[in-house]
Amino acid sequence: MTTTTHVTRPTGSLTGTPDDATPARLGIGARFSLHPHTGDFVDVIFGALADAADAGLTDGLVLETDDVSTYVGAVDAPAEQRIVGYLAGVLAAASRRTGGGHVVAHVLLSRGCPGEVTCDLTVTGLPAAAPVEIAPTGVAATAQWSLYPLLDGGSDAGSHMAPIEAAIERARARGTATGSVHYATRLTGDIAEVLATAADAWAEVGAHVPHVVTHLTVSVGSPSPAGA
Amino acid sequence: MTTTTHVTRPTGSLTGTPDDATPARLGIGARFSLHPHTGDFVDVIFGALADAADAGLTDGLVLETDDVSTYVGAVDAPAEQRIVGYLAGVLAAASRRTGGGHVVAHVLLSRGCPGEVTCDLTVTGLPAAAPVEIAPTGVAATAQWSLYPLLDGGSDAGSHMAPIEAAIERARARGTATGSVHYATRLTGDIAEVLATAADAWAEVGAHVPHVVTHLTVSVGSPSPAGA
Repeated sequence: MTTTTHVTRPTGSLTGTPDDATPARLGIGARFSLHPHTGDFVDVIFGALADAADAGLTDGLVLETDDVSTYVGAVDAPAEQRIVGYLAGVLAAASRRTGGGHVVAHVLLSRGCPGEVTCDLTVTGLPAAAPVEIAPTGVAATAQWSLYPLLDGGSDAGSHMAPIEAAIERARARGTATGSVHYATRLTGDIAEVLATAADAWAEVGAHVPHVVTHLTVSVGSPSPAGA
Repeated sequence: MTTTTHVTRPTGSLTGTPDDATPARLGIGARFSLHPHTGDFVDVIFGALADAADAGLTDGLVLETDDVSTYVGAVDAPAEQRIVGYLAGVLAAASRRTGGGHVVAHVLLSRGCPGEVTCDLTVTGLPAAAPVEIAPTGVAATAQWSLYPLLDGGSDAGSHMAPIEAAIERARARGTATGSVHYATRLTGDIAEVLATAADAWAEVGAHVPHVVTHLTVSVGSPSPAGA
């Protein structure tokens, strides 16, 4: 069962080399749900998904949409670049299709637990991903973001704290991490920069911690005043 | 910073007794965002929050609504019962206010990281929470659920696996855990039962693991066929 094995199973005997750590073997992917706050939400959602496909943003990805969310799996490298580019494109397209209306995307990014039933990795070398580079969408977003390195039993947190704190510090330094609330960090900026900030931190930690999950709630076009 | 300290800081030297483990000291709470897929979303959201308050579901809770989500903190025990009862009431009220339209709630439940900046607990004894008992809302929901015990460095996963797998098995046994997808488990049933399933597993694991977070995307009134 995904929930239990993703969070409790040690990553097992790790063999192989970084070259073996393909996106598919690492289980690098995302789930996201898109919430246009309009009665036309069905047309907006499917239209936005089509817009992203028409823009070529689905290249190298596997997509599975169900009645709750859409799975985005990376088949080809650069996995993070492809996934984040697609997510930014879909959310920006939904915003355009609502004429700048209120649209929220909930995004889960995961790495280190391929498949649905096991969490066993067969690679030791965890690849260092290049920062994603996504063209600005022109749409301003506000997000609440949480990062979960699942250190597994027996891991030495001490050895992981440096890369984690460095990743978070970079998120602060790039200016998108603008505050914190209970259980989450506030990110503000262009949709592309907000998603890239979370994804880069997730990938940087993932070069040191096998299983890392991050969640973001990304809001555009909210009628509520910031911090309201 | 919440994100980094919540996930990386060891829980520190744990002293004190279970009696010291008040909901506030354990940081037991939730963040949720509510997404009515209608142009009237502002009235639906604030109306649903008001309905829950009028029903007395905010007793013993602290609420802070910002432009992305609402924080729900438990001041008094039973924390889990109060939080889940409130969340179920708000989502059901939003469904009623849309005439059974499509409404999605994203819910984060957290325990073991009080405050925003540190993750240090000062209790050893982690209290065992009673299962929540929420009256059925009459509204059917489908959710995708993930559970994240943040074992912290040096934890022995082996000692945690039994309670985690027991909690997940109970979720299966009660019939709400009906499948799995990449990175999440599918839950179906009345809003109250879906939320209670995730909350009970989260609390049960929290009796053994200091810091446990769970995320759910809960959908009601979706026009998409199940599994579509």
